[in-house]
Amino acid sequence: MLNLILDIIGVASFAVSGAMVAIHRKADLFGVLFLALMTALGGGIIRDLLLGQTPPRMFTSYVYIAVAVASALAVFIAAKTKNDLYRRYENRLDRVDNFFDAIGLAAFTVSGAGIAVSTYGLGNPVLVVSMGMITGFGGGMLRDVLTNAMPMVLTKHVYAVASLAGALVYYWMLLLRLPALLCDLTAGVLVFVIRVLATRYHWNLPRVDV
Amino acid sequence: MLNLILDIIGVASFAVSGAMVAIHRKADLFGVLFLALMTALGGGIIRDLLLGQTPPRMFTSYVYIAVAVASALAVFIAAKTKNDLYRRYENRLDRVDNFFDAIGLAAFTVSGAGIAVSTYGLGNPVLVVSMGMITGFGGGMLRDVLTNAMPMVLTKHVYAVASLAGALVYYWMLLLRLPALLCDLTAGVLVFVIRVLATRYHWNLPRVDV
Amino acid sequence: MLNLILDIIGVASFAVSGAMVAIHRKADLFGVLFLALMTALGGGIIRDLLLGQTPPRMFTSYVYIAVAVASALAVFIAAKTKNDLYRRYENRLDRVDNFFDAIGLAAFTVSGAGIAVSTYGLGNPVLVVSMGMITGFGGGMLRDVLTNAMPMVLTKHVYAVASLAGALVYYWMLLLRLPALLCDLTAGVLVFVIRVLATRYHWNLPRVDV
Repeated sequence: MLNLILDIIGVASFAVSGAMVAIHRKADLFGVLFLALMTALGGGIIRDLLLGQTPPRMFTSYVYIAVAVASALAVFIAAKTKNDLYRRYENRLDRVDNFFDAIGLAAFTVSGAGIAVSTYGLGNPVLVVSMGMITGFGGGMLRDVLTNAMPMVLTKHVYAVASLAGALVYYWMLLLRLPALLCDLTAGVLVFVIRVLATRYHWNLPRVDV
Repeated sequence: MLNLILDIIGVASFAVSGAMVAIHRKADLFGVLFLALMTALGGGIIRDLLLGQTPPRMFTSYVYIAVAVASALAVFIAAKTKNDLYRRYENRLDRVDNFFDAIGLAAFTVSGAGIAVSTYGLGNPVLVVSMGMITGFGGGMLRDVLTNAMPMVLTKHVYAVASLAGALVYYWMLLLRLPALLCDLTAGVLVFVIRVLATRYHWNLPRVDV
Repeated sequence: MLNLILDIIGVASFAVSGAMVAIHRKADLFGVLFLALMTALGGGIIRDLLLGQTPPRMFTSYVYIAVAVASALAVFIAAKTKNDLYRRYENRLDRVDNFFDAIGLAAFTVSGAGIAVSTYGLGNPVLVVSMGMITGFGGGMLRDVLTNAMPMVLTKHVYAVASLAGALVYYWMLLLRLPALLCDLTAGVLVFVIRVLATRYHWNLPRVDV
C-alpha cells in the first residue's frame, strides 16, 4: 500500500517533469505523452527487470499509466492554453522542473529500495541501495538520453548522492526494525531536502579542472 | 508461423533502415552491420526481456541474425558499388528509409502484440498494446540513441500513434475471435498506411509553440 | 574462479576508462564514480539480463562495486593532485584510455562467452558469441551513450571485430575440449592484440564515401 502511494507520487512528478522537457524540446502531443511515460515508468521498469519481476508492474496495472498520462495531459493543456498558472511559472520553468524531479527522486528511491527488500530481504544492502537509486534516477536518465541531453545525474548538484543517502538511511532504519511508514517518510524527506538545498545553494562535489 | 513471418519481414526492413542510417553517418562495414542488427533485433529483445523470455528469441535462432546481416550487406554493397538501383534512389534516401521503417513498424507491432497475447492471454490489454508498440519502435529508438539523433518516435508525424492504433485494433479483433491471419493483416496494413499517409501529407499532432 | 578473475580485470580496466572520460567531460566526483560504475558493470548487467540471471551478479557481490569504485577513486585523486604519474600520461590520455579499454574488452569478451557456455552449454554458438561481444562492449556503449558520444563500437578501428574474433576462437577451442585456462588466455590475448594493433596501425574496415 505504501509502495503503491509512493509509486503514484513518483509517477505523477516525473510525468510532469518529462512533459515539461518534451514541450521545451518542441515534441508534439504524442511526444509529450511518450516522454512523460518513459520518465515516469522507466525507473520502475529497469528495477523490475533487474529483480527478475516480469512483466514489470508498470505494465500490469492501469493506475500508473493513467496517472502518468493524466499528469502529462494537464501540463500540455496548461502550456497550450497558456493559462494563468502556467504563465506564472513560465519564467521559473527550471525551478518547477527541479521541484517535481526532486519529489519523484525521493518517492522512487524509497519505493525501489522497499521493493528490493520485500523481494530479497535485508541480506544484501548493495542490492537494496542500488535498486533505490536506479528506480530513483533511471527514468530521468532515460528522459535525458532520449532528448540527447547529458544525464542530469552526471552533472547536477549532488543528484545521485541525495538518492544514495536516502537509500542508505532507509536500509539502516529497516535494520533497526523501525516502523515502515517512519522509514519511508524519513528517507523520502531526506532525499527531497538534500536535492532542494543542493539546487538552492549550488552545492557542488569536487571536480577536476581540465 | 505467422509471428515468424512477421518477425522476418520486420527484421529485414529495419536492417535496411539501420544500414542506411549507418552509411549516412560514415560508419564502417562493421558499424553498418552492427547498427542494422541493433535496429532489427532491438525491439524484439526489449519485448522478450519485458516478458521474461530469456534468452531472447533473437539469440536462439540463426534466422533473424542471418536475415539482418544479409539485408545490411546488400545495402552496403549496393552503396559501395553505386549500382543502378542504389543511384536511382540516392536522392530519395529519406523516402526509402521511411518506407522500410513503416513496414518494420507494422510487422513488429503486430508480432509484439501477438507474442504478448500468446504468453499472457487477452486479460491485460495494456500489456498487449505496450508490447506491440515497444517491439514496433524499440529498435528504431535504439538506432537513434546510438547515432545521437533525437528519436524519430518523439518527433516524426504520428509515428507511435500509428503503432498504437494498429495494436488497439489488433487486440479488439482478437477479442471478437476473428481469424488470426485477418487480425494480423488488418492491423499491419493499418499501421503501414497511417505511417505512409502521415509522411506523405505531413500530418502533425498539436504541439506547444515555445 | 577464472571468470571471477577475468571479471575483476575487466571491471578495473573499464572503471579507469570510464573515470577518465568522465573527468574529461567535467563531471564531479560522483559523476566520475557513476560513469566508472556504468562502464565497468554495464556489460555484465546487460548479459545477465539477457541470460535471465536476476538479480545480475554485479549486484550480489561487493567485490565488483568495490573494485570499480577504488579504481575510479584512484584516477580521480591522481587527476586532482596532478601527481607525477598522471602528469606523465596526461598528453597521452587517449592512448592510455585505449589501453585500458582493450584490456576490459578482452577480459569481458571471454568472461561473457564463458558464462553463456556455463549456463546454456555449447549448443548455441550464436548465443555464446553474442554474450561475449555484448559483455565486452556493452559497458563502453553505455558510457558513450550517457556522455552523448557516438559509440566507439560504431566508429573505432575494428573494435567489435576484435571481440567477435576472440569469442569465435574461444567457442571453437572449447568445442575442441582444450583446457579452460588455455581457451581463456588465447582468446583474451587475441582480442587485446587485435585492438592494440588496430589502434596503432589505424586498421580500418571498408566504408562508403558519402
